[in-house]
Amino acid sequence: MLTEKSDEHYMLQALREAQTALEKGEVPIGAVVVAKDQIIGRGYNQTELLKDPTAHAEMIALTAAFNSMGAKYLPDATLYVTIEPCLMCAGALYWSKIGRIVWGADDEKHGHKNRTNQNPFHPKTAITSGILKEPCARLMKDFFLSKRK
Amino acid sequence: MLTEKSDEHYMLQALREAQTALEKGEVPIGAVVVAKDQIIGRGYNQTELLKDPTAHAEMIALTAAFNSMGAKYLPDATLYVTIEPCLMCAGALYWSKIGRIVWGADDEKHGHKNRTNQNPFHPKTAITSGILKEPCARLMKDFFLSKRK
Repeated sequence: MLTEKSDEHYMLQALREAQTALEKGEVPIGAVVVAKDQIIGRGYNQTELLKDPTAHAEMIALTAAFNSMGAKYLPDATLYVTIEPCLMCAGALYWSKIGRIVWGADDEKHGHKNRTNQNPFHPKTAITSGILKEPCARLMKDFFLSKRK
Repeated sequence: MLTEKSDEHYMLQALREAQTALEKGEVPIGAVVVAKDQIIGRGYNQTELLKDPTAHAEMIALTAAFNSMGAKYLPDATLYVTIEPCLMCAGALYWSKIGRIVWGADDEKHGHKNRTNQNPFHPKTAITSGILKEPCARLMKDFFLSKRK
């Protein structure tokens, strides 16, 4: 019997991407884009590798999803990302008209919520946060603690 | 005698990029990144061609500049763009720590100014607007008028 996979299932996939980032010495954030119960884009933060501070997990996963679908709008897709999107990624998600955004842990410092005076997303985009927030946050905390040593 | 080229000089280069976008049926926005009086990145809006709504002129010019410099921060560079950056591009410019941003015409609908509750750029980034704003705005107006016909 086919059943729709859960938010936790896909957030674990995003966490797997974040783990890959960690192993490469990148800030450990990962994302996947899902449509019709299929992953159509994956990404992990690659700002160091590419020497490009815009190479965030969400941007890479979104571009993969646009390529996969041959479409520039993703109203039937969901983006899962381990950490609250920054202003740039919130703006990118706005342009994508994505159906739904799910993030794990909030980001007090660089998250979009503290920086906008209105919902930055498309009005039709649904938002869920807090899915597997503890492992998502822990990866980040451990990474920054290890950097300070 | 070497003299530093003017803002108008580089905005004309950004306008040339916007003109290329127009000729390809794209929303006519163009950008260049300049450091030490050299253009280190160029871009024009390619959202239709790439079927990627994040392929804005600024994003493309910035990524070219990061590649050109082999650096992920551009504190000594200036980005010239024909139209006020959107929220996504403002966020990207924040991450770049670019030294200065110069835009032509404001964008009431999608510009970042109406959407943020604070300066979205890096605190050290200088801002100038209104350079060649009339030709920058006219390209956009003519494009959207032609689309309505």
